[in-house]
Amino acid sequence: MISNSIVYIVLAASILALAFAFIFYKQMMKEDEGTDLMKKIAAYVRKGAMAYLKQQYKVVIIVFAVLAAIFGIMAYFKLQNGIVWFAFLTGGFFSGLAGFFGMKTATYASARTANAARKSLNSGLQVAFRSGAVMGLVVVGLALLDVSVWFLVLNGTGLLEAVGAENDLITITTTMLTFGMGASTQALFARVGGGIYTKAADVGADLVGKTEYNIPEDDPRNPATIADNVGDNVGDVAGMGADLYESYAGSILATMALGASAFATAAVEGLQFKAVLAPMLIAAVGVLLSIIGIFLVKTKEDAGMKELLGALSRGTNAAAVLIAAATFGIMYFLFGKETGELANMWWQTSLSVVVGLLAGVIIGKATEYYTSQSYKPTQKVAESSKTGPATVIISGLGLGMLSTAIPVVTVGVAIILAYLCANGFNIEFTATNLSRGLYGIGIAAVGMLSTLGITLATDAYGPIADNAGGNAEMSGLEPEVRKRTDALDALGNTTAATGKGFAIGSAALTALALLASYVEEIKIALVRIGQDLPNGVEAAKATLVDFMEAYNVNLMNPVVLVGVFIGAMMAFVFCGMTMNAVGRAAQKMVEEVRRQFSTIEGILEGKAEPDYERCVAISTKGAQHEMLVPSILAILVPILTGVILGVPGVLGLLIGGLATGFVLAVFMANSGGAWDNAKKYVEEGNFGGKGSDNHKATVVGDTVGDPFKDTSGPSLNILIKLMSMVSIVMAGLTITCHLL
Amino acid sequence: MISNSIVYIVLAASILALAFAFIFYKQMMKEDEGTDLMKKIAAYVRKGAMAYLKQQYKVVIIVFAVLAAIFGIMAYFKLQNGIVWFAFLTGGFFSGLAGFFGMKTATYASARTANAARKSLNSGLQVAFRSGAVMGLVVVGLALLDVSVWFLVLNGTGLLEAVGAENDLITITTTMLTFGMGASTQALFARVGGGIYTKAADVGADLVGKTEYNIPEDDPRNPATIADNVGDNVGDVAGMGADLYESYAGSILATMALGASAFATAAVEGLQFKAVLAPMLIAAVGVLLSIIGIFLVKTKEDAGMKELLGALSRGTNAAAVLIAAATFGIMYFLFGKETGELANMWWQTSLSVVVGLLAGVIIGKATEYYTSQSYKPTQKVAESSKTGPATVIISGLGLGMLSTAIPVVTVGVAIILAYLCANGFNIEFTATNLSRGLYGIGIAAVGMLSTLGITLATDAYGPIADNAGGNAEMSGLEPEVRKRTDALDALGNTTAATGKGFAIGSAALTALALLASYVEEIKIALVRIGQDLPNGVEAAKATLVDFMEAYNVNLMNPVVLVGVFIGAMMAFVFCGMTMNAVGRAAQKMVEEVRRQFSTIEGILEGKAEPDYERCVAISTKGAQHEMLVPSILAILVPILTGVILGVPGVLGLLIGGLATGFVLAVFMANSGGAWDNAKKYVEEGNFGGKGSDNHKATVVGDTVGDPFKDTSGPSLNILIKLMSMVSIVMAGLTITCHLL
Repeated sequence: MISNSIVYIVLAASILALAFAFIFYKQMMKEDEGTDLMKKIAAYVRKGAMAYLKQQYKVVIIVFAVLAAIFGIMAYFKLQNGIVWFAFLTGGFFSGLAGFFGMKTATYASARTANAARKSLNSGLQVAFRSGAVMGLVVVGLALLDVSVWFLVLNGTGLLEAVGAENDLITITTTMLTFGMGASTQALFARVGGGIYTKAADVGADLVGKTEYNIPEDDPRNPATIADNVGDNVGDVAGMGADLYESYAGSILATMALGASAFATAAVEGLQFKAVLAPMLIAAVGVLLSIIGIFLVKTKEDAGMKELLGALSRGTNAAAVLIAAATFGIMYFLFGKETGELANMWWQTSLSVVVGLLAGVIIGKATEYYTSQSYKPTQKVAESSKTGPATVIISGLGLGMLSTAIPVVTVGVAIILAYLCANGFNIEFTATNLSRGLYGIGIAAVGMLSTLGITLATDAYGPIADNAGGNAEMSGLEPEVRKRTDALDALGNTTAATGKGFAIGSAALTALALLASYVEEIKIALVRIGQDLPNGVEAAKATLVDFMEAYNVNLMNPVVLVGVFIGAMMAFVFCGMTMNAVGRAAQKMVEEVRRQFSTIEGILEGKAEPDYERCVAISTKGAQHEMLVPSILAILVPILTGVILGVPGVLGLLIGGLATGFVLAVFMANSGGAWDNAKKYVEEGNFGGKGSDNHKATVVGDTVGDPFKDTSGPSLNILIKLMSMVSIVMAGLTITCHLL
Repeated sequence: MISNSIVYIVLAASILALAFAFIFYKQMMKEDEGTDLMKKIAAYVRKGAMAYLKQQYKVVIIVFAVLAAIFGIMAYFKLQNGIVWFAFLTGGFFSGLAGFFGMKTATYASARTANAARKSLNSGLQVAFRSGAVMGLVVVGLALLDVSVWFLVLNGTGLLEAVGAENDLITITTTMLTFGMGASTQALFARVGGGIYTKAADVGADLVGKTEYNIPEDDPRNPATIADNVGDNVGDVAGMGADLYESYAGSILATMALGASAFATAAVEGLQFKAVLAPMLIAAVGVLLSIIGIFLVKTKEDAGMKELLGALSRGTNAAAVLIAAATFGIMYFLFGKETGELANMWWQTSLSVVVGLLAGVIIGKATEYYTSQSYKPTQKVAESSKTGPATVIISGLGLGMLSTAIPVVTVGVAIILAYLCANGFNIEFTATNLSRGLYGIGIAAVGMLSTLGITLATDAYGPIADNAGGNAEMSGLEPEVRKRTDALDALGNTTAATGKGFAIGSAALTALALLASYVEEIKIALVRIGQDLPNGVEAAKATLVDFMEAYNVNLMNPVVLVGVFIGAMMAFVFCGMTMNAVGRAAQKMVEEVRRQFSTIEGILEGKAEPDYERCVAISTKGAQHEMLVPSILAILVPILTGVILGVPGVLGLLIGGLATGFVLAVFMANSGGAWDNAKKYVEEGNFGGKGSDNHKATVVGDTVGDPFKDTSGPSLNILIKLMSMVSIVMAGLTITCHLL
């Protein structure tokens, strides 16, 4: 018999992840940090990164306090239950903690990676990758800790009853779902703030240093170079980590809620409980397999670039294949004994997980094809530099737009397949088929994210290698070492691009699962305040189809249509705001760098040290200042839509924002990635090589691409998930108070 | 008693429009074309434009032949009725004819405008504007001719019965709706082909001429300059005309169909017929008022820029105010005698029309704010040139994205208001309220487009003035004349920008009306093949709500969601294709111009004449070659979606494409417009003025903006309407044959 105690496996997995993260951290710290200069530079970056994080947390704490208070008030009016405000805080706290640990590790690792690269390419890879793994394991570890402990508390104690709520699995899972709001809010500020920080510094450093003064990347004479390196950490490590923490936790929580609902009326005892367990168990086993995958990443001492890439792929591929196999085991363990129409459930649901895994792989490959200079699309962008920067921009934008086809079609096919697999390939649209199918979509998202421990490791590896290169350049290490760090950096660029595609794809699937579970939240809210559906159906017994009919959530309802319009617009407006934010913040950086170049004597000859800290302070202040308006907008618009347009408007908003946001995010990430690598392709000696007019044209493309791929694009991942989360938490308000 | 004969008023209005178009044309032709050189240049442009149009029509004829054959085959299998194939051809023919007349007029008018400007600014304005009015009146005249004649034929004769169809108003209007497919297909090629032509020439001319050789715009030494001027005619005159022809005809036809359906079961006799008449009558009266407005456009001989703008505004504003007033008269005439719950119908429906008119005005103003150099947003883009081309691009993109907010919210509010006004402010979601409300949305679109005769005149005026400037420059007219043509051109830029906003907004509302009438088409298709709804409801008696429930067109259906995803993607992929098409075609132009500059001796000194024709041929071939793939995609995707995903998938596709396409189109048009005017702002002497590095940075922005505002953006208008039209025509196929 499967009992609550099985959740301790999940708890154990989370502790295992944290333990290995600690081991890897300790291993890394044992490495030598290199020369005094290397230590000094690393300390600068570390100090800057921590200073920024501190500032960001200050803002975040205020926002969290306000939101927690609002949830408290809502609980008083029975618009939400009395646990949410506290659980919301834990979600945010753990997400913040993951970012803090991950970034701390990354900032300690960069100089050590550079120093290890003095020995060999492989040593450098090991230090950087294991440090990245700390981030990956901390994220999955803390997320699973939060999920498993809360589940044990809510399912084992009478806490929910104590606050006046029901104590069934549906209430437990929908309550837990709202915890995701904490992770969402934290991720919002981490992605948006971090994204603005990193690109203000990067664009500012490039515009003056590279373009006006012709000094290379990461040159210590450039006052913004430390800020640029800090940015890699706050944006690409902490921001990316918080983004995927949210997807990871969100997909598990949403699928638990969908499972509780889909099997609530199942005649077979315990089926509902097992459906709730499934996503947690897949994630738990995924942790173990990720750790195995991490250990598989090693290579010969004299490994070349291709072998290195192979080593990384071996780790992620092994983890993916193993989790696919293990899923069938888990599902057989849970559902293998079912009979009748559920006899095939174990392998059918497993197929949904595999669909999610495969979709992740395809999106990653498509991203690589469109953004790597080894393939035609990016080479063509590089070639268009022959006719100047304008054609570089035009062709890069064209490439990005075209590149949306494969990921969208992949996700589309995955949605349909995951849906059909999970409901026994039944295309008939009944309430039962629908809710089981939606559970399948949710579990596909869990599948895609199950090996996050290692995929995030390859991701976080990128900025560490990038910073190592910066450190090597600034400390004037031998050319041979720089060549090695450059190779590590190039490898990181590839993993960063595929990682971005993966982050977007998983955000889309997660948001879809959240969208479906929004209706569950409406149901619980109605039960809490003791209302029936508008068409008189009893809330507790209402199916998803009843909800669609009662709230007229169909495509002829103008309220739904207007919601879709607003959602589509939100994606663009949010992007526009973050683009402008980078523009403004970069402008200030440019002025400061120009000022230092013209007023500090001997700075260009390397005789005087630039005022790095001032640039760090400008980026910090700029990010802090600029992240507020778009963040508040992202939280307010779903609330206002709910209050004005009601439930159908909210669902329209969510699907409009999701569809447009997803496509826009892919477009921006891939355009940005292609511009970056088109520049690299020219720098490798094609179309005139470094310093040519063609190169300058590609630098313009790269600069435009910076906010595309590192600020606005990734921020959209958050937007599409956050809008769902806000709607979920505010469901009680929407149904009791709306204009239309 | 209101009888069929009242439709002759509509026919008379269409003939009136054509008569005035003929008069204005004759007036213009009487003007002197100027010096021999002016005549020669105008002849070059005219010849090039006609040559292109001929090539375009060749492709279009093949596509039309194939589609007509397909509709014939569909009729054989009862998937469509036996009139559609022929009516489809008339729609395409009239749209093509309007483009032909409009462009012919424009190409005769440019030299005459330049010559008239030698006399005075006002004479120039008069010639250019009246010539633009030819386009406006030909478009509305031919569209109303097509609509009224077909209605008289179908409603007066037994033609429909002869082909085995019903002969009621629902069948008549849904049959007529499919005629719009002809206009859509014609518009597709005109917008996409024309857009690629004009920007390949423009970008090619600018990249080599302006950027590499530093010679001014429209310089006769530039081999691509004639092609550039040809492009203004084929893209901005013929393309814009076909686009709005489609919106105009589409909105009237869709509203007729919605009216026939909404009042099909009305107890009051004749109400259905009057509801069908209403959009035609509003359009007919709009023709008359547009002509009055056109005559109001005149000014003192010594008028300055501000007075000129005032003169144009006076014309359009007067027409708008008059039609608002007249609408109440028309509606009172039609519905003033109704009693009971319909007693207020006349003024309530009138309000819907006013909502549409107002929305058009607001969108126009918002467009002006975001794209005119008189306002801050564009000035800020100009200012960002201080840090180079990359920040110009970033800030322009940011501006465009932010600028989507006002138009989308405006259209959203307009949708809700038009809906509520038309159904008596009843928010309850019943079948009756819904269909009357949707009729209100349709009639709002008709209202927005009712004064198209004059709004399109101000639009088509732009490229005529632009070409007049080109002619003046190339024929070396006195600086004073060039200053006047520059002023006329600047005025044209403002009207072009607002015209674009108007075109997008009207396309969105029209597409929405088409979306609603798609369901009517499904109904007729079911009746034709004698099927009931999937849930057993009898098709002929089914309401819109029945259809939503029977086909599960709700936001929890994964098929709908996947449709929305594909729709959002289509907008981006279509844009990406047209962007790349411009990039490739421009590339060829650049190579040719470079070749001529380097091989034709004395070309740069103005001693040898460039080979203009070769550049014209390159643009023609490029456009013809490049327009095929995106066009075929736009036609195929809705068909494939229908065949794979069925009705819910198609509706998802349409709403996804509409929402994302609308927002994307606004973004692209406004970014493009802002870049164009930011460059002009710098040229006016700000931030360094002409020839400075800042100016060069804004030229990069302008070049990127060219395909944004004149190719990809406007093509989206077509895409969102065309996908609905294709779905409407293919409705029979979708319901009989689909995978899911």
